[in-house]
Amino acid sequence: MKKEKVKIVIWGFGAMGSGMAKMILKKQGFDIVGICDLYDKIVGKSMFEVLNLENNQDHDVIISNDIDDILTNQKPDLVLLATDSFTKGAYPKIKKIIEHGVNVISTAEEMSYPLANQPELAKEMDELAKKNKVTVLGTGVNPGMMMDLLAVCMSGVMEEVDDMEISRINSLSPFGKTVMEEQGVGLSVEEFNDKLNKGQMAGHVGFKESVYMIAHALGLEIDHFEQSMKAIVTDINRKSPYGFAKKGDVCGVEMSAKAILNNGKVIHMYHPQQIEPEMVGVSTGDYIKIKGKPAINLANSPEVEGGIGTISICVNMIPQVLNAHPGLKTMIDLPVPRAIMGDVRKLIIKE
Amino acid sequence: MKKEKVKIVIWGFGAMGSGMAKMILKKQGFDIVGICDLYDKIVGKSMFEVLNLENNQDHDVIISNDIDDILTNQKPDLVLLATDSFTKGAYPKIKKIIEHGVNVISTAEEMSYPLANQPELAKEMDELAKKNKVTVLGTGVNPGMMMDLLAVCMSGVMEEVDDMEISRINSLSPFGKTVMEEQGVGLSVEEFNDKLNKGQMAGHVGFKESVYMIAHALGLEIDHFEQSMKAIVTDINRKSPYGFAKKGDVCGVEMSAKAILNNGKVIHMYHPQQIEPEMVGVSTGDYIKIKGKPAINLANSPEVEGGIGTISICVNMIPQVLNAHPGLKTMIDLPVPRAIMGDVRKLIIKE
Repeated sequence: MKKEKVKIVIWGFGAMGSGMAKMILKKQGFDIVGICDLYDKIVGKSMFEVLNLENNQDHDVIISNDIDDILTNQKPDLVLLATDSFTKGAYPKIKKIIEHGVNVISTAEEMSYPLANQPELAKEMDELAKKNKVTVLGTGVNPGMMMDLLAVCMSGVMEEVDDMEISRINSLSPFGKTVMEEQGVGLSVEEFNDKLNKGQMAGHVGFKESVYMIAHALGLEIDHFEQSMKAIVTDINRKSPYGFAKKGDVCGVEMSAKAILNNGKVIHMYHPQQIEPEMVGVSTGDYIKIKGKPAINLANSPEVEGGIGTISICVNMIPQVLNAHPGLKTMIDLPVPRAIMGDVRKLIIKE
Repeated sequence: MKKEKVKIVIWGFGAMGSGMAKMILKKQGFDIVGICDLYDKIVGKSMFEVLNLENNQDHDVIISNDIDDILTNQKPDLVLLATDSFTKGAYPKIKKIIEHGVNVISTAEEMSYPLANQPELAKEMDELAKKNKVTVLGTGVNPGMMMDLLAVCMSGVMEEVDDMEISRINSLSPFGKTVMEEQGVGLSVEEFNDKLNKGQMAGHVGFKESVYMIAHALGLEIDHFEQSMKAIVTDINRKSPYGFAKKGDVCGVEMSAKAILNNGKVIHMYHPQQIEPEMVGVSTGDYIKIKGKPAINLANSPEVEGGIGTISICVNMIPQVLNAHPGLKTMIDLPVPRAIMGDVRKLIIKE
């Protein structure tokens, strides 16, 4: 058991970063020692003021835009990095944290399995982390858990694994303005397709990461990977707290992917995201079907909500990262995730 | 990657041990170098003859009742021990294997979390394993996965965990004569209750192990634990390949348990096992409900069959055990289970 509190810095204080702060403040054995964000409306303010919470730590935390200052003076055990979706964008930040000798958990979707899209950066991060004796992990609810790690875990009771069909059918209604824009909610079909053709629709980032994680976990390789994106068009008006799509317009994005493994087996991924799916009788959930011996037919319904799920798994993986060997890790390298319900220090076995 | 094949000895060649042999013979990178069993009808025979399979290894394996001879001469990497349900019974065998400097995976239900019922033996095994630089793991489909590790894993996306309700509703029909007797299939209610009162009904072994595993994973303790067992009485005649229960007699066993955690939250366990549940409209499956934020409502239906599930997870955990630090480990200490679909040596990172 660790004696001192686990010192955390959060870099990126949007929906994810501030959600993690709120979660950590409810847990025992943590100490938030720094918050970094560039948004000038919050820089210089107390974290507690921005969160609208009473200060329950023994010191205040003033939000700063100077990460070097925070890392040098606060010497955290770990940085929660909630700034990017792509490894390329997260990389210089991760490099800086590593070089300060600090462990990192990144929310960047591509970082959940960086070998899939950025094998060279993955190799560099791994070497740099080992040299600086720290551990780097990317995780989230998806990629990171519901469409990959959970399928890997279920395959553990299987003698033979055949084709897989992994679906995440979720609602975008709990999300804010940014997600509505990213997912094209409210656009006309023409506007959506125009953006799609110009490569301006991000959709879900992470299919490639998920299938590479699954393949490598089973000891296989990916021979072929393809994914596609299309608008979900609503035939009724739909309204969510931050989104509106009128009849005939776009209420979300349907993504699917197909990966062929080097043993000929196929992984199908299906992930439609829309506001107010219940209005049209779509029941949301996470579904994993694996053909083989025995077959797996897993459903978690309704789905694990993306925001709270990602916030939770990033915070919950802190002990596993602190206990790990140095290097770049993924969810298949570390012990299974779990909620932290007692004092986090009881879960830290490496001093 | 390991260069030599992974050398396996199987101790106990009943339904579990022989099933593991069959599974391993279909995989790449393994070499079964010894089988130990005391049953004189098979001692001295070829493993392949007993399995009714062609020899696809480059050498034969003659079943022996002399484990010391096997361990001394074959120098395996790991022993799959499929002989006992209780830690006390498995302990002397595990001790012997450890002292030969060999890793162990045990199917004994209590070994899935030996701290629950045998904390002193657990400590001894841990010390002995560390001294001899080997790893010991107990696992199986239940305990080991469907009623514990999977709940732990799902809690990883949760911010707050409240009460849990974990059910495994399964069919006994695929099982053989021994299981029918153990579970009281075909007994009159009077006979069943008489055996129950005399402490002669084993029922399911593992609830205590499962709840301790869950509690410790979350950083909590168990304040109170109780379990109960009762007959499932059929109101129609039921017949399975190896079992028969006439109307009014016992067709299986219903077990339930309740554990109160030191934060006041409760884990309910429910595990009815019977032959031909479909005849009375019982749909089988593994169910995990966790109240909290977010709530989890997981179902795998039908259930992962006990025999094939245990065989698979024991074999599939071999790489994790070979990669682990020395000591007594449980499923929450090791990376998530996964099927071995490629050459097992690719999954061995520790030489």
